[in-house]
Amino acid sequence: MFIRNEWYTAGWSQDLPRGESKILARTICNERIVLFRDPQGKVAALEDRCPHRGAPLRVGELVPEGIQCGYHGLVFDGRGQCVHIPGQTNIPKSANIRRYHVVEQDEFLWVWIGDDEKVDTTKILRYPFNNDYAKWPHRNDMLHVKCNFMLLIDNLMDLTHLGFVHKTTIGGNAKVHVDAKMTTEHTERGVKYTRWMLDCMPPPTYSKAVPFKGRVDRWQEFELVAPSLIVQWSGATDANTGAYEGQRDGGFSLRLIHAITPETDSTCFYFFSSANGYRQDDPTATDQLHREIVAAFNEDLSIVAAQQDTLDHFKGRPLLDIRADGVRVQGRRLLERMLRESNGEAAAEIVGR
Amino acid sequence: MFIRNEWYTAGWSQDLPRGESKILARTICNERIVLFRDPQGKVAALEDRCPHRGAPLRVGELVPEGIQCGYHGLVFDGRGQCVHIPGQTNIPKSANIRRYHVVEQDEFLWVWIGDDEKVDTTKILRYPFNNDYAKWPHRNDMLHVKCNFMLLIDNLMDLTHLGFVHKTTIGGNAKVHVDAKMTTEHTERGVKYTRWMLDCMPPPTYSKAVPFKGRVDRWQEFELVAPSLIVQWSGATDANTGAYEGQRDGGFSLRLIHAITPETDSTCFYFFSSANGYRQDDPTATDQLHREIVAAFNEDLSIVAAQQDTLDHFKGRPLLDIRADGVRVQGRRLLERMLRESNGEAAAEIVGR
Amino acid sequence: MFIRNEWYTAGWSQDLPRGESKILARTICNERIVLFRDPQGKVAALEDRCPHRGAPLRVGELVPEGIQCGYHGLVFDGRGQCVHIPGQTNIPKSANIRRYHVVEQDEFLWVWIGDDEKVDTTKILRYPFNNDYAKWPHRNDMLHVKCNFMLLIDNLMDLTHLGFVHKTTIGGNAKVHVDAKMTTEHTERGVKYTRWMLDCMPPPTYSKAVPFKGRVDRWQEFELVAPSLIVQWSGATDANTGAYEGQRDGGFSLRLIHAITPETDSTCFYFFSSANGYRQDDPTATDQLHREIVAAFNEDLSIVAAQQDTLDHFKGRPLLDIRADGVRVQGRRLLERMLRESNGEAAAEIVGR
Repeated sequence: MFIRNEWYTAGWSQDLPRGESKILARTICNERIVLFRDPQGKVAALEDRCPHRGAPLRVGELVPEGIQCGYHGLVFDGRGQCVHIPGQTNIPKSANIRRYHVVEQDEFLWVWIGDDEKVDTTKILRYPFNNDYAKWPHRNDMLHVKCNFMLLIDNLMDLTHLGFVHKTTIGGNAKVHVDAKMTTEHTERGVKYTRWMLDCMPPPTYSKAVPFKGRVDRWQEFELVAPSLIVQWSGATDANTGAYEGQRDGGFSLRLIHAITPETDSTCFYFFSSANGYRQDDPTATDQLHREIVAAFNEDLSIVAAQQDTLDHFKGRPLLDIRADGVRVQGRRLLERMLRESNGEAAAEIVGR
Repeated sequence: MFIRNEWYTAGWSQDLPRGESKILARTICNERIVLFRDPQGKVAALEDRCPHRGAPLRVGELVPEGIQCGYHGLVFDGRGQCVHIPGQTNIPKSANIRRYHVVEQDEFLWVWIGDDEKVDTTKILRYPFNNDYAKWPHRNDMLHVKCNFMLLIDNLMDLTHLGFVHKTTIGGNAKVHVDAKMTTEHTERGVKYTRWMLDCMPPPTYSKAVPFKGRVDRWQEFELVAPSLIVQWSGATDANTGAYEGQRDGGFSLRLIHAITPETDSTCFYFFSSANGYRQDDPTATDQLHREIVAAFNEDLSIVAAQQDTLDHFKGRPLLDIRADGVRVQGRRLLERMLRESNGEAAAEIVGR
Repeated sequence: MFIRNEWYTAGWSQDLPRGESKILARTICNERIVLFRDPQGKVAALEDRCPHRGAPLRVGELVPEGIQCGYHGLVFDGRGQCVHIPGQTNIPKSANIRRYHVVEQDEFLWVWIGDDEKVDTTKILRYPFNNDYAKWPHRNDMLHVKCNFMLLIDNLMDLTHLGFVHKTTIGGNAKVHVDAKMTTEHTERGVKYTRWMLDCMPPPTYSKAVPFKGRVDRWQEFELVAPSLIVQWSGATDANTGAYEGQRDGGFSLRLIHAITPETDSTCFYFFSSANGYRQDDPTATDQLHREIVAAFNEDLSIVAAQQDTLDHFKGRPLLDIRADGVRVQGRRLLERMLRESNGEAAAEIVGR
């Protein structure tokens, strides 16, 4: 059960390097898609199935006219038009295959899952930081996760888990997280929250990256852009140097975009780009931050996979919202409404509801 | 399909060593349970699911107040009461989780699967040999088995398999087993049989443990304590030295308790304790017996897993009782009656019936 | 869903070496069968299930009277008669098990899947080349394939895939294959096609085996003997030396029999025998050809497994026949008619239709 008529991240520009004959296969919302660049470098996305004998196109190869099926050689161009059938000149209309609208922008490959007539490129989130290597050097990456995508959105919408799941990485003292000063605002396409932990000890990841004098003022800004994106800005400066009032330079600062793409009902892709807003001229800083983020995300992956498995086992049992769930529940309501709009009554069976 | 309102073995005392912060997760009769010791050392058993977001408690950690969920930090005491929710003081009743009655006795961890109001600790089998290290030094262990627990009970209720399955370990000559002198008696909670093989050659396991002059008189006493326990006393002395008349000292003698705990419909746990009633002051004798038992049980495990797989494939096909099945069938009838009592008509689909 | 009342290849004579106590287990058309030689060397095939407690006979052992169940020792002769039950002399009729008619001929072990009263040994294809080591030295082998058997028959009935799937082995230029001169004839039990590629470059496998002067005249004769056999004769001689007119000696020539045995609805066994009609006195030629064939077949195995997976995912979506599918469709129609005859309306759900 998926939210349709939305753009989802299918990969990064780097997943289809220019000048290489690479084919990328992804299942998004249970739709099997194959992505590749045409000779002009434009990314195309087609249904991953040859209409002749049902072989997947991902095991084919790229030819000047498009993608060639690896079984009997039918060729499809980037719009899904069959342009060659070995042994015959007549090409029937039924030889064409479904194409997916795809946009490459800000290093993302965005694929439209939904009806072609509803395609709306203005709905694609812009993420300019990915184009600003001077201020925001970054690494793009992806992890495969064994849970419904909403459990990962939940995870990111309630940061009180940091003190329990991420003790040794980005977490720190649990009580500090629970007691953080929190403000919430509704946005056009979701909800945004800002948390301040003033005069607290920096977590290991922060201290490794930047030398602090001692205690810090720490902020976390998270914005859900429904259904699948969360844009994050976090950081800390030496305590009482004015961060809360707006002076946030000179300390630790990172930007993260979390692009959670549903694969199947019980799996998803966790695309992310981590950017270091400090020591920008030192590539090891960018690498180190990326490594720390991967370590922290792997901690999340263990718990959400275990959660999915437990929810499956105890299917139908009610869950309990607590005070810390405030923003998470706002995000959930939004996603669940979108699910119902896409699926009608079927949406009664929502994971982790 | 399980027999409820019974005590099942969930583990051994040693699985939760005192003074260590260990958490033990077990699925019993398809119910997921987490076991741990409270600070006083008392064993607790709870449903393995946090009511907040459905994370399993087994990935949490022990704190002085109880077990803390590893996701957002809710804490539950040994009776399943939620005693802490980070960020709030009010704890709603729905935050409490199901506890399981658990008794630690004779080195067993017994868990009650059934209705709380029917709990009856007098139904727990006593096994004093586990407390008598001088006469019965022993090793407790467990093997995971890919079959319904009844196939393993069947296995133990018809020892004619020894000559075929355990040729090189505890078996010996097949004909001797088939021709054993056998007596059967009904007991309060099951059935007990005694087999005598007089003037026969000892099997390899026996000879390795004790020096015999040549032929032996060999006995096997097995008592089914329904639904899941079989208590065994086996041994041999030099032939014609009076074992059959009651003089059973001085030769080979072992006690085994087989505690077969259903995990799912097609898997179970084989808990066992093997005690050597000979060379009690020699720890290598205890270890050697344990090793031999593990080797023999692994032979059983192969055949019962293959049997389960074959029964699944040929589902619905009738089986054929033979003369050697006499006691096995008595045990079966008892278990199948208990299954029907717990499950009503559904019990028509009984594995290996 | 299978085609019954047919002979299927269960293995090769060599799979049950004379003088060894070997037991061979095979699932054919979802029926589990165990094969073995009786003391006279005659091959027997029985249902792989002891009627006593449902253990599989494949984990038993051979005794002079037949096959002995490895659990409690019941013995069955080659006709499925129970001839021994330990501990009792009376052997009830219900102790007998199903036997399968089996014929060993031309190095094949043929098993009849269907009704005993319809057994017809005249329907077994003769393959005399397997007895002619002087002219057709060969290797018999088997590969397990993750697709319905019909996808592999399809594969062999449309050789235009050679130029795409087998580029580096038996394939060669795709256009040459697509443009091959092709004749088709109906046969009593299937369809046969002959393809000529005159004055073309030999593929790598051919050149490795035989020294050509340059271009060759190449032929491929394939005959489907429904439902599961394809008999192949392929070869090439130096171009314009009269191959097309009948003079086919002196070049490269191979015989292959493809015996595709359904295991389950989505898996099959690919039995094959590859014979080199050249350098017959050089065993390395036979081995080399066998290696090349295995390499080529593994290329097929990848694509048909991916095809099966894709057909499953897109279940119900129509496929598109192209011009190159001419003979393939003829073979398919035949097989699908046989499927309907065996399964009635159920046959509407045919893989890759």
